[in-house]
Amino acid sequence: MAPPITLFTGQWADLPFEELCGLAAGWGYDGLEIACWGDHLDVRRAVEDDAYLKAKRETLDRHGLGVWAISNHLVGQAVCDDPIDHRHQDILPTRVWGDGDPEGVRRRAAEEMQWTARAAARLGVSTVVGFTGSAIWKYVAMFPPVGAEVIEAGYADFAARWNPILDVFEAEGVRFAHEVHPSEIAYDYWSTVATLEAIGHRESFGLNWDPSHMVWQGVDPAGFIWDFKDRIYHVDCKDTRLRPADGRAGRLSSHLPWGDPRRSWDFVSTGHGDVPWEDCFRTLNAIGYDGPISVEWEDAGMDRLAGAPDALRYVRETLPEPPTASFDSAFSSGSEG
Amino acid sequence: MAPPITLFTGQWADLPFEELCGLAAGWGYDGLEIACWGDHLDVRRAVEDDAYLKAKRETLDRHGLGVWAISNHLVGQAVCDDPIDHRHQDILPTRVWGDGDPEGVRRRAAEEMQWTARAAARLGVSTVVGFTGSAIWKYVAMFPPVGAEVIEAGYADFAARWNPILDVFEAEGVRFAHEVHPSEIAYDYWSTVATLEAIGHRESFGLNWDPSHMVWQGVDPAGFIWDFKDRIYHVDCKDTRLRPADGRAGRLSSHLPWGDPRRSWDFVSTGHGDVPWEDCFRTLNAIGYDGPISVEWEDAGMDRLAGAPDALRYVRETLPEPPTASFDSAFSSGSEG
Amino acid sequence: MAPPITLFTGQWADLPFEELCGLAAGWGYDGLEIACWGDHLDVRRAVEDDAYLKAKRETLDRHGLGVWAISNHLVGQAVCDDPIDHRHQDILPTRVWGDGDPEGVRRRAAEEMQWTARAAARLGVSTVVGFTGSAIWKYVAMFPPVGAEVIEAGYADFAARWNPILDVFEAEGVRFAHEVHPSEIAYDYWSTVATLEAIGHRESFGLNWDPSHMVWQGVDPAGFIWDFKDRIYHVDCKDTRLRPADGRAGRLSSHLPWGDPRRSWDFVSTGHGDVPWEDCFRTLNAIGYDGPISVEWEDAGMDRLAGAPDALRYVRETLPEPPTASFDSAFSSGSEG
Amino acid sequence: MAPPITLFTGQWADLPFEELCGLAAGWGYDGLEIACWGDHLDVRRAVEDDAYLKAKRETLDRHGLGVWAISNHLVGQAVCDDPIDHRHQDILPTRVWGDGDPEGVRRRAAEEMQWTARAAARLGVSTVVGFTGSAIWKYVAMFPPVGAEVIEAGYADFAARWNPILDVFEAEGVRFAHEVHPSEIAYDYWSTVATLEAIGHRESFGLNWDPSHMVWQGVDPAGFIWDFKDRIYHVDCKDTRLRPADGRAGRLSSHLPWGDPRRSWDFVSTGHGDVPWEDCFRTLNAIGYDGPISVEWEDAGMDRLAGAPDALRYVRETLPEPPTASFDSAFSSGSEG
Amino acid sequence: MAPPITLFTGQWADLPFEELCGLAAGWGYDGLEIACWGDHLDVRRAVEDDAYLKAKRETLDRHGLGVWAISNHLVGQAVCDDPIDHRHQDILPTRVWGDGDPEGVRRRAAEEMQWTARAAARLGVSTVVGFTGSAIWKYVAMFPPVGAEVIEAGYADFAARWNPILDVFEAEGVRFAHEVHPSEIAYDYWSTVATLEAIGHRESFGLNWDPSHMVWQGVDPAGFIWDFKDRIYHVDCKDTRLRPADGRAGRLSSHLPWGDPRRSWDFVSTGHGDVPWEDCFRTLNAIGYDGPISVEWEDAGMDRLAGAPDALRYVRETLPEPPTASFDSAFSSGSEG
Amino acid sequence: MAPPITLFTGQWADLPFEELCGLAAGWGYDGLEIACWGDHLDVRRAVEDDAYLKAKRETLDRHGLGVWAISNHLVGQAVCDDPIDHRHQDILPTRVWGDGDPEGVRRRAAEEMQWTARAAARLGVSTVVGFTGSAIWKYVAMFPPVGAEVIEAGYADFAARWNPILDVFEAEGVRFAHEVHPSEIAYDYWSTVATLEAIGHRESFGLNWDPSHMVWQGVDPAGFIWDFKDRIYHVDCKDTRLRPADGRAGRLSSHLPWGDPRRSWDFVSTGHGDVPWEDCFRTLNAIGYDGPISVEWEDAGMDRLAGAPDALRYVRETLPEPPTASFDSAFSSGSEG
Repeated sequence: MAPPITLFTGQWADLPFEELCGLAAGWGYDGLEIACWGDHLDVRRAVEDDAYLKAKRETLDRHGLGVWAISNHLVGQAVCDDPIDHRHQDILPTRVWGDGDPEGVRRRAAEEMQWTARAAARLGVSTVVGFTGSAIWKYVAMFPPVGAEVIEAGYADFAARWNPILDVFEAEGVRFAHEVHPSEIAYDYWSTVATLEAIGHRESFGLNWDPSHMVWQGVDPAGFIWDFKDRIYHVDCKDTRLRPADGRAGRLSSHLPWGDPRRSWDFVSTGHGDVPWEDCFRTLNAIGYDGPISVEWEDAGMDRLAGAPDALRYVRETLPEPPTASFDSAFSSGSEG
Repeated sequence: MAPPITLFTGQWADLPFEELCGLAAGWGYDGLEIACWGDHLDVRRAVEDDAYLKAKRETLDRHGLGVWAISNHLVGQAVCDDPIDHRHQDILPTRVWGDGDPEGVRRRAAEEMQWTARAAARLGVSTVVGFTGSAIWKYVAMFPPVGAEVIEAGYADFAARWNPILDVFEAEGVRFAHEVHPSEIAYDYWSTVATLEAIGHRESFGLNWDPSHMVWQGVDPAGFIWDFKDRIYHVDCKDTRLRPADGRAGRLSSHLPWGDPRRSWDFVSTGHGDVPWEDCFRTLNAIGYDGPISVEWEDAGMDRLAGAPDALRYVRETLPEPPTASFDSAFSSGSEG
Repeated sequence: MAPPITLFTGQWADLPFEELCGLAAGWGYDGLEIACWGDHLDVRRAVEDDAYLKAKRETLDRHGLGVWAISNHLVGQAVCDDPIDHRHQDILPTRVWGDGDPEGVRRRAAEEMQWTARAAARLGVSTVVGFTGSAIWKYVAMFPPVGAEVIEAGYADFAARWNPILDVFEAEGVRFAHEVHPSEIAYDYWSTVATLEAIGHRESFGLNWDPSHMVWQGVDPAGFIWDFKDRIYHVDCKDTRLRPADGRAGRLSSHLPWGDPRRSWDFVSTGHGDVPWEDCFRTLNAIGYDGPISVEWEDAGMDRLAGAPDALRYVRETLPEPPTASFDSAFSSGSEG
Repeated sequence: MAPPITLFTGQWADLPFEELCGLAAGWGYDGLEIACWGDHLDVRRAVEDDAYLKAKRETLDRHGLGVWAISNHLVGQAVCDDPIDHRHQDILPTRVWGDGDPEGVRRRAAEEMQWTARAAARLGVSTVVGFTGSAIWKYVAMFPPVGAEVIEAGYADFAARWNPILDVFEAEGVRFAHEVHPSEIAYDYWSTVATLEAIGHRESFGLNWDPSHMVWQGVDPAGFIWDFKDRIYHVDCKDTRLRPADGRAGRLSSHLPWGDPRRSWDFVSTGHGDVPWEDCFRTLNAIGYDGPISVEWEDAGMDRLAGAPDALRYVRETLPEPPTASFDSAFSSGSEG
Repeated sequence: MAPPITLFTGQWADLPFEELCGLAAGWGYDGLEIACWGDHLDVRRAVEDDAYLKAKRETLDRHGLGVWAISNHLVGQAVCDDPIDHRHQDILPTRVWGDGDPEGVRRRAAEEMQWTARAAARLGVSTVVGFTGSAIWKYVAMFPPVGAEVIEAGYADFAARWNPILDVFEAEGVRFAHEVHPSEIAYDYWSTVATLEAIGHRESFGLNWDPSHMVWQGVDPAGFIWDFKDRIYHVDCKDTRLRPADGRAGRLSSHLPWGDPRRSWDFVSTGHGDVPWEDCFRTLNAIGYDGPISVEWEDAGMDRLAGAPDALRYVRETLPEPPTASFDSAFSSGSEG
Repeated sequence: MAPPITLFTGQWADLPFEELCGLAAGWGYDGLEIACWGDHLDVRRAVEDDAYLKAKRETLDRHGLGVWAISNHLVGQAVCDDPIDHRHQDILPTRVWGDGDPEGVRRRAAEEMQWTARAAARLGVSTVVGFTGSAIWKYVAMFPPVGAEVIEAGYADFAARWNPILDVFEAEGVRFAHEVHPSEIAYDYWSTVATLEAIGHRESFGLNWDPSHMVWQGVDPAGFIWDFKDRIYHVDCKDTRLRPADGRAGRLSSHLPWGDPRRSWDFVSTGHGDVPWEDCFRTLNAIGYDGPISVEWEDAGMDRLAGAPDALRYVRETLPEPPTASFDSAFSSGSEG
C-alpha cells in the first residue's frame, strides 16, 4: 500500500491554515506535516484549549487531510544554540524569546518542546519533527583550535538539555525526529553517530531523513537510511541541485543568497536536483518504512504555487510499489516435458 | 517504421499462457518472446502435435499478438555447464534432467535445443534466444591457478557441443541468439570475441543483446552493438541500476539477494537504471536492426503488474524514429538573391 | 511571465515559409526566428519591397506567430572566412557569391549583413542572429607553428570587417547576436573574451547563446550566461549528447558524419543531450533575460516532424517560473505565543 | 617505531629457501612471511622434527631475517572448496591430495591446517595467513537461480569445517588471518561481515588485509581497515592497476591471462597500481596496527628480481612515521606580550 | 632564478627560535616566514627595542636564513571575530586578551596588527601574512535565516576595522596578505571577490595563497592564482588529502579531530595531498610571482621532523624552472636546402 | 633487454648538431632521432655526398650515440596541406618552398620525402618519422556543411600523393611512421582507421605513436597501441597535462599560446602530464615492440636544458623490464609432503 504523501506547512506559514488546507487538498496531497508557527499550530493552545484543537481537526477533515507528524524546527533550534541572537528573535514566539537572555531563551525553548510533545499526543500524532540547535556548530572550521574536549562538551550539553525533553516525549508516547542539518548537533553521518551515542540511543530520539542536506556534503542519503534503519522516524523530501564544478563555486557557497547562480548548490523542488530519489525510496521500502512521505518545498528559482503540485506528481511517479514475489521464481514453474 | 515491442514471457511462466496473453495485449505489447517453459511452449509438442501448435497460434491471434522469437535459456544453460547440480534440476524439464547424471543431462539438453530449432521453424519464427552454459565459468576468479590451456579447452568444449546443435538450426533456417551473460561461455566483450572465433563465426550463431549484464561489468552496451553489428539477432531490454560508490558495496555483490540495498547494482525495470537506452536505440537504428525489441522484466523492488506497462511506455517514448533526410541539407536550399 | 518560445527556421528552409508557419503554429510555438534563406526571408526585398514585407507579416499573423529575431548565419559566415570555397558557394545567395573571388565575396557578404540590419528594423525586430566567420579558425591546431601576431591579426581582421557593419546596426537600432561556434571568430569562452575586446565591447555586438557547441568543448554553458550576462542577446536551444568515453572516439570526431555512432558527440533534439537545461534556464532567469527562447532543431537520428514538437514540450516543461518571494520568509511569519 | 617489512615467499617457492633468504636479506627486507610449500616450510616436519625446525631458524638468523607469520593459502583453499579438481591437485601436497576424493581432500586439508597452527606455535609465530575455500563461490553469478538458503548453507559449511580448525588454533595460541579474496568464503565487504557472523566473531579468526582484491571490486581498502579494525591480523601489500575504461574491458576480465592488455585490471608490484597506499598506511597507524607489513609480489609485466626491491623501497618511502604531538598545539605556546 | 623556499614557524613556536633556525638551516631552507608568537617575534619589542631586533637578525644571519615575510594569524583573527571566547584566549598574547571583553579584545588586536606592520618595516620585510577574523563566519549554514543585509554588514564591519590598520601598513610601506581560510572574512572565491570590493581594492590588502583550504571546498587553486593575479602577495604551501568518497564522510567532517580516518579530508605535508602543485607553480611562474614559497607544515599523521625536510625536497623537485625561449622556435631554424 | 632511449632533435635544431650530440650524450641518451632540418640532416646531401654522411656518422660515433630513425615532419606536412601559406614558408627548405605556388610546393615536398627515404637507407636506418599534411583538416568543424564525398576525396588525395612516395620507401627498404596529430590526415583513432584503409594497409606505411595528441582528444593511448599493434613503427614520448575542468577552458584552447594558464591542456615534459606512461610501456612490451623510445621534448613552462635529462630519467625509471616466467608458476612448485 502506498504511503501517504504530505506537505510540510513551514514554508507556507504566511498563509492562513485554512487557505493552505484548501491548496494542499486541491493539489491532491493526502495530508499535512503541520508547522508549529504562523497560525498553523500553537502547541500551548492545542494542549489547553479543546475548542482550538477541535477546530484544527475539523479544518483538516473538511479538506480530507490527514496528519501523521507536527514540526517545531524553530523552537527546537533555540534549545542548544549558542549564540542566541537576532536570528532567533526573528523566528521564535514572543513567549519563548521573552527578554532574550540566552539561557532563559534556551530554557523556555526546552519547555516549549515539551509542550509540543503534549500537543502531538493530543492531536493523535506519534512524531514531532524538529531541530536541536547546537552549542558547537560554530566551531565547524576548527580554527581557532578547538580541542576534542570542547566537542565532547557540546554533545554532553545536547544530552543534558534534551534528556528532560525526551522524558516528556516518552511519557506522552511520542517520538522526536531530529532533522540532520547543518547548524544542528547532528549534521552529517558521523555527527549523527555521536549524537545517538550521547543520548544513549534512547528510542524516543530518532531522525527526520531529509536528503537535501546530505547531497552537497557528499553523504549518501540511501546508505544513510540503511545504516540508521531503526531510527528513521520521518521522511522529508527536499532536493538539492549541484552546479557543475567550475573551480570558483566553493562548497560553502560564499554566504551568497539562495538562488544565486554563483553558489555551488541550491535547494530545489523535489525531483529537480541530485538526490537519487528512486534509490532512496527503494531503500525506504527495503527497511519497511511505513510512515508519511512529506514534501518540504524550498526552491529559490521556482514559484511555489507551481512547485508544490509538481513535487507531489514527482513523488507519486517515483515511489515504486514493492513486489509480492521474486522475479526469478517463475523460472522453476515447471514444464510439461 | 517502428519495430514491434514484445514481452519476454520467462518471468511470467507461473501464469497460464492464455492469461499472460491477455495481460500483454491489454498493456499494448505488439507480441511475445515466448519462453519454452511453464505452459508457454513445449518444443517437443510444438513439433509433434499439430493441434497444440495451432492452439498456441490461435491464442496469440485472438489477442492480436505477434511472435518473432522463442527462448530456451534454461535448457541451453545445461548444454555446457559444469557442475550440473540442484540448480539445474530446479529449472529443467524432467525429460531433460532424467537421472541427473551430468553428461546425460548435457546430452539431452543439446537434443532439446535441436528440438527448439525445429519448433521455431514450425512456428514460423527465425530466432531462438538462449544461453549456452559454460564449462569454465567457475574459473572466473582464476584461483586456484588456471592455465590458458584450460580456458581454451572450455571454448573447445562449447564448440564441440554446439556445432551439432547449429547444424540443425541451419537445416531449419533458424538462428540462435546467445545472451551474453555471466555464467555463460560469452559473458563480456572479449569472451564474445573468443566465442565467435571458437565457432568459426558460423552465421547461425549470433547474439541476444541484453545490456543489463554489461553495465555493471563496465562494458559499453552501445559500442557493443556497433562492434558486433553483424551478429545482433535479437534485443532484450532489461536495465541495471548502479548504486553510488560507497566503498562497501563490491561489484560482485557479496552473494546478497536481488534487491538488497547493500548490493552495488540490481536489475530494474527498463528505464529505471543506468543503461544508456537512447544511445543504444540510436545505435540499433544506425546498424539497421529491424527485429523486435523485447522487454525482459526483472525488478526486485517493483510490482511486475505495474512494471510491465511502465517499461513498454518507456521504450515507446525513447525509441527515436529515424529521419528521412540530413538536417543540414536545408542550408543549401537556395535563396532568392 | 513566460518568455515566447520560437522555432528557428534555418533547418526547414526546404519547406515554403507558409507551410512551415502552419506546422510551427500547429505544434504550439509562439513564433519564429526567421532564417534569411530559402523563401523565408530575402533581406533586400524586405527593405525595398513593402508588399513583400507586408505579405510576410500577414502570413505570420494568420498563424498567430510572433517574431523577435531574424538570423543570417550563412551570409555572416562569409564576412571573415578564409578560405572561401565550394562550401560557401553551396550556401550563399548568388548575389553574394557573384564570381566567387574571395575578397569580393567577403565584401558583398558584409554589405548583405548591413541589409540584414535594415530588414530587421523594418520588420520591427531588435536582434539579428548570425555567424562572423574567421580568418584564423583554420589555425586551431596551432601547427605548422602559428605566432601570437597571426592570431592577433585574425581578431583585428574581424574588427575591421565588422565595425562598418555594426555602424549600420547602430544606425538602425538593431543588435547583432553572434553565435559562439567552432569555425567562427568566437568559438569558446576565452575567444569570446578576445572577440569582445577586439570590437571594444561595442554594445551592438552581443551573443546568441547556443550551448550545444559548449558542451563538447567542456565549456560550462550556465556559467557562460552569468559571465557574459550583459551580452546575452538571444537564446538558441540545441542539445549535444556525449557518448560514453570508450578510448576510441576522439573529441574532434574523425570527420565522421553527423549521427555516426563512432563519433564522441552529436547534436540532438533539445532535452536528449547533456546540456544542463534547467541550470541554464534558471541562470537566464537570474540575469533577467527576457527575450525569446528559440528551438534550433538538429538531430541526425530523429525525424524532425516528431522532434520539433518534442523539443517544444521539453522546453515548456523545463523552464521554471520564477518565484515572487523568498521561501524562508515564512519562517518569521509570526506565531500566536 | 617503524613496523618490520617482510617478503611473502609464496611466489618464490621455486627457489630454495636458503637462496631466497639471501636475496631478501640482500634487498633489505626485515623478514619473511614464509609459505608452507616448496621447500620453504613443511608444517608436519616443523612439528615433528626438531632438527628441521632448528635448521630453518638458523637459516633465517644467518641472514638476519625475522618471521612474524607463516602462510598456507594453498591447503586452506581445499578445506571448503567445491568442486575439488585438477587445480587443487596441482597445488596441494600429495599427502593432502591423496586419492583425490573430494571429501577426503577437504578433510585432510582441514587436518593440515591444524598442523599449520601447531607449526606456527613451534616457530614462535602468532599468525597463520591463508585462504578458506568456499562451497558457494561458484554461485557468484546467481544464475541458475540460487536461493538464500543455499548461500546460508555455504556460510554454515564454512563454519562447520573451520570451527574444529580454530579450536586447535586457540589451543596453540595462534590466530588465523583469512585473506579476503575472490574464490573464498569472504571476498568483499559484506561477505566478510557474513563470514565473521557465521563463525560467531571468534577472536582466533581474523583477516589478512590485501587491498589488491578490493580495488577492482570497488571496495575502499582504507575504510575496510577502519571498519574491521579489531580483526586486521596481518597486512599483505599487493597492488592492482585499473586500465582506463574503454567500454570493452569488462570487470570480470574475459578469462584473459594475467598481463593481457585487454584485461580491465591486473596485479602489479606495490606502488604501481591504484591502491591508495598512503591512505591505507595512515589508517593502519590510526588503528594501532603494529604487525608486519608484508610484500606479496605479483606482476605479470615486470621481472621479479627488479620488482621485489622496488616494492620494498616504495613501502619504506610511503609508510609515514606518526607524530608525537598535534601540529596545532604550538599555536598556544605563549608569547611574551 | 629559483624563488627562496622558507619555513613558516607558526607550528614550531613551542621550539625556541634559535633551535628552529638550526633545524631549518640544516634541512636546507633558504629562510623563514616568522610567526609573531612563541619567542619567535614580539612585534612590540621589535619596534621598540633595537637590541631585540638586532639579536633576531644575528640569529638568522648566523644560520644563513633570509626573511621575506612575517605572520600574525592569531592576532589578526581577533580583529573581526564574533564571538570572542576561550579559543582566542588560548592563542592571544595577554596584552591583547586583557580582560577578555570582546570589543576591547578586537580593538587591541587591531592595534597589535598596526604594530606588526611597523615591526615588518623595521625588519625590512614587505609583507605581513595573517587572518582577518569575521563577524559573519558563524552564519555559514544560513540557518536560522540570515538576510543579505546581515552579510553585507559583516563585510562592512571588516572594512571598518581593517581600513585604519591598512592606513598604518601603507604609511610603513608594507602589504597585508590575507590567508583565504574558513572562519575568515574571505574563505573562498566569491567571498574573496566581496572582500576586495568591501575594501575598495586597496593595494595594501592582498592575499596569502594557501591552496589547502581551497581543495576540499572545490575551489581550483591554480585558477585562483590567475584570477587574482594582481593580489597574490605571498605563497604558503600546505596540502590537503581528500579521502575516497564513501558516502559516510561528509565534507564538513563531523567535528572529528585532525587525522581521524573517518574525516573526508585532512591537512597533509606538501606533496602528500590533492593540491595540483605543478599546475599551481606553473601558474605562479606565468603571473610573474617572485616572492618566497613558504612551507606551512601541518600533518596529523606524520612526524614533523621527518616531514619538514620531505616537504622542502618535494617543493624543490616540483618547482619548474621557466624556459628562455619557445620550444617551437627551432622548427624554423632553417635548413641547408 | 631494455630498448634504446633517443632524443628527437627537432626542437633543438637551433643548436649545431655537434653541440647537441655532446649534450644528449652527456645526459645519457643512447642515441638520436635526427630531424632533417637545421644543420642536423640534409637529406639530399646525405644521399649525394659521401663525405657529408660519413662526417655525420663520425660525430655520432664520437659521442657513442646510435640512430634508429630520422624525421622529416616539416616537409611531410606540405605534401597534402591545403592551404599552403606563410606557415609552411617559415619551416620548409627554400628548395622545397621555391616560388610558393601551392601545387609546386606539394610536388617538391613529395619528392623531398622520397629523398628522405633514400637518406634513411644510406644511413642504415629503417624508419622515417613524419607528418602527411591533409587537404581536409580545415573542415574539422564541419561547418559550412561538408559532405561525406568531400571527406572521402581528402583521403583519396592523401593516397594519390603518398603512394608514389611509398613506392620509393619500399624500394629502399624503409618504412614511414606517420605521427597521428591534429592537422594531419590521421589525427585520432577512426581517422587512422580510414587512413590505413585509404592506402590499402600498405605495410610500408605505419605509425609513430605519440600519445600527447591523444590524451586531450580523449583517445586512450594504450588501447591505441594494442589495436594498431602491427603498425606501431616508432615511439615518441611527449606528454600532455590537462588542467582541472573549470568550465571556462575549452578543449580547443581558444587559440591561446602554449603555456597560457587559461588553456585546458598543454604539452609538457614526459612524466609531467596525464599520459598513462606505465600502462603504455607495458602495452608496448606486450605487443613485442622493440624499437627505440624517443623523447620529443616540448614544454612551454620548463627550461629545456633541465627538462631533457629529467625526461630521460623518467622514462628509464618507468619502463618495466618484462618477466621471464609467470608469477603463479611457483604455487605448484611442489612440497615435501
